Amino acid sequence: MPHISQRSQSVPLSPFRKLIPLADRARATGKHIYHLNIGQPDIPTHPTAVAKFRQLPWEILDYSPSNGIDSYREALREYYARFEVTLSADEIMITTGGSEAILFFLLSCLDPGDEIIVPEPFYANYNGFAHMAGIRVVPITCDIERGFRLPAPEEFAQKITPRTKAIVITNPNNPTGACYSRVALDGLAAIVREHDLFFCADEVYREFSYDSPLQSILQLPGLDQHAVVIDSVSKRYSATGARVGALICRNASVRESVDRYAKLRLSPPGLGQRLSELMLQDDGAYLQGVKDDYTLRRDTVYRRLQAMPGVFSYKPGGAFYCFARFPVADSEDFCRWLLEEFDHHGATVMLSPGPGFYATPGLGQDECRIAYVLNVDDLERAMDCLQAALLLYPGRTASVATADLGSHLAQ
Amino acid sequence: MPHISQRSQSVPLSPFRKLIPLADRARATGKHIYHLNIGQPDIPTHPTAVAKFRQLPWEILDYSPSNGIDSYREALREYYARFEVTLSADEIMITTGGSEAILFFLLSCLDPGDEIIVPEPFYANYNGFAHMAGIRVVPITCDIERGFRLPAPEEFAQKITPRTKAIVITNPNNPTGACYSRVALDGLAAIVREHDLFFCADEVYREFSYDSPLQSILQLPGLDQHAVVIDSVSKRYSATGARVGALICRNASVRESVDRYAKLRLSPPGLGQRLSELMLQDDGAYLQGVKDDYTLRRDTVYRRLQAMPGVFSYKPGGAFYCFARFPVADSEDFCRWLLEEFDHHGATVMLSPGPGFYATPGLGQDECRIAYVLNVDDLERAMDCLQAALLLYPGRTASVATADLGSHLAQ
Repeated sequence: MPHISQRSQSVPLSPFRKLIPLADRARATGKHIYHLNIGQPDIPTHPTAVAKFRQLPWEILDYSPSNGIDSYREALREYYARFEVTLSADEIMITTGGSEAILFFLLSCLDPGDEIIVPEPFYANYNGFAHMAGIRVVPITCDIERGFRLPAPEEFAQKITPRTKAIVITNPNNPTGACYSRVALDGLAAIVREHDLFFCADEVYREFSYDSPLQSILQLPGLDQHAVVIDSVSKRYSATGARVGALICRNASVRESVDRYAKLRLSPPGLGQRLSELMLQDDGAYLQGVKDDYTLRRDTVYRRLQAMPGVFSYKPGGAFYCFARFPVADSEDFCRWLLEEFDHHGATVMLSPGPGFYATPGLGQDECRIAYVLNVDDLERAMDCLQAALLLYPGRTASVATADLGSHLAQ
Repeated sequence: MPHISQRSQSVPLSPFRKLIPLADRARATGKHIYHLNIGQPDIPTHPTAVAKFRQLPWEILDYSPSNGIDSYREALREYYARFEVTLSADEIMITTGGSEAILFFLLSCLDPGDEIIVPEPFYANYNGFAHMAGIRVVPITCDIERGFRLPAPEEFAQKITPRTKAIVITNPNNPTGACYSRVALDGLAAIVREHDLFFCADEVYREFSYDSPLQSILQLPGLDQHAVVIDSVSKRYSATGARVGALICRNASVRESVDRYAKLRLSPPGLGQRLSELMLQDDGAYLQGVKDDYTLRRDTVYRRLQAMPGVFSYKPGGAFYCFARFPVADSEDFCRWLLEEFDHHGATVMLSPGPGFYATPGLGQDECRIAYVLNVDDLERAMDCLQAALLLYPGRTASVATADLGSHLAQ
């Protein structure tokens, strides 16, 4: 019997992958699971665009150009212009989700053995794409006590080696919800210019910046040759299944390289692109509604976490995630226990354990990511579960008064 | 300014990529181009399925499971059962086009530096995916005089080294249209069993086998641990933009490895999968019609090529390609000349030059691939162009009587 590859056996897995069979078993017993573990919103995909999409005349679902449908790229050009980001349509390349854009960036800009510096905790699949491309991920740790703000530019500079080719950030951040300030971004911009690095920003949560407008790295001066932006329609229009992303770059050499990989796989998904173009035509009211909804959810989660004894959190500024510290010694065990041993009025909650979002071993063991992708009523009930669970979990590290225990369980 | 990667500069390009700007310029002068260079059929995507797709109720375009929508995989199980291929739905993994299935196969089954043996000429993008995965492509040359039949198993055996991990075939073949016999496949099956190799068959043209039913490697006994089949809806239903393929494998370890890569990119395209499931529900009459159409096109191209002095061809058994030998010394120059210097009643024809389909340097210099993706009327006119061009092309190598020249030009 032929053997599978060595490399495939070390592909990094999702932080909650081990929990999926446990969740399946819990569900089979009739337990309701509030899924706060994944970035799959319960918000309907842009309904007006979907209605138009159904009526769209087409006869042959042919290959689109490898860099995407021209009219869609032109529409995206106008979209970026709204944020005072001036681009030509050629500087926007459509990809199969943001995922493919990340992989194409790594392949196009880095050789095997090269390094990217990434603030941790970070989107865990970066590890997987780096693995595919033979890239080393060099983490720089952000501090929950400072709301996971970016470390100082000097700290980034200390991580630079002769193999460093890029700094990669997610802004707004997954898994922390942090939004980075203009000052912080300017600091990194100076570093990438000084050391001749690429500056890659995954801005797929751009529209979900709740307290101030998002600063895109495309707005920073002097970065035309350095900046690579990853984008996607997945979260913006609640269309994760469309698999339509983009790589935006003003550096023509980078685009030429990306184009070689893009041509190999022929074209990004045609139906998803057509839907995406329609979603973009008419997104003002939709996006405002979605943003208002997420703001309420953010506030709900923050308020509830603040009220839980022993839990430390902060007010996330964007995306739809909160990374919180819990009074537990082992967040993976806590997440397992929530599914296997706990229920609250027939329900439980599924979270993503913290360690999978760190590259530094040993970090995140008392942290979990909460994706507030459910409506406020469900979120309240999920928080009820979490609150009750923290009082009962045998591995909890903070002492909780019995009176508290009784009153919470009576809810 | 930061530099792009070394590796991206050596990604192999499509055989006709250099011709695209020439075609654009020719088109700009008002010249009509018959595109026989690409596998983009002019046949409407399954119309009944498209109509149903427009009515399909859905509200949230969410992530599908990373291995594809359950009901679609179940429908594919039934599809394969029609060919007496017994599978479980879990043995079918949905990918983003056949392209992704090829890449996932290479990453999952081979390590960098490993080798695949591929009969040449072959689908040129295999070079690109092998490049991405760090795999060496070892060609084994097929002979146009024998209709590009598979070489004898002993010839394959001679190519095997300690790094050989797989034999990869395309059946029906792109670019040759060859369909492989049961005897030939059994010969390769014996080799892969003896040498413990994977046997990967790209069967995306399965439904286009004109003279006898296609033999799938999934029908061969004793290959459960070896066989990996690549599939796609692109050509079958004329839905190349759907980007929905599949990797079929009974070897659980392979599937587990593929699944790791599949989870990284979250899910294959959701809209394309929904359309694909509908196309599969009702494909008997549609596929028969398409097959009848392609049979007529195949016969047209074959008849016309046979009548052209100095052209050597054979009757392709499947797919929608014919690989022909022309009386030219340099097929790349011939294809360039067709676009830049020739026209016949305001039109010309675009072909794919042969060398790009070979890994062995120097081969294919008098060959071109013809994709018969146009309707019979257009094909006839394209063949008129080709016939006239061969009489005028200054780089032709076969002598053509002036009388012939005159009579052809008068058509």
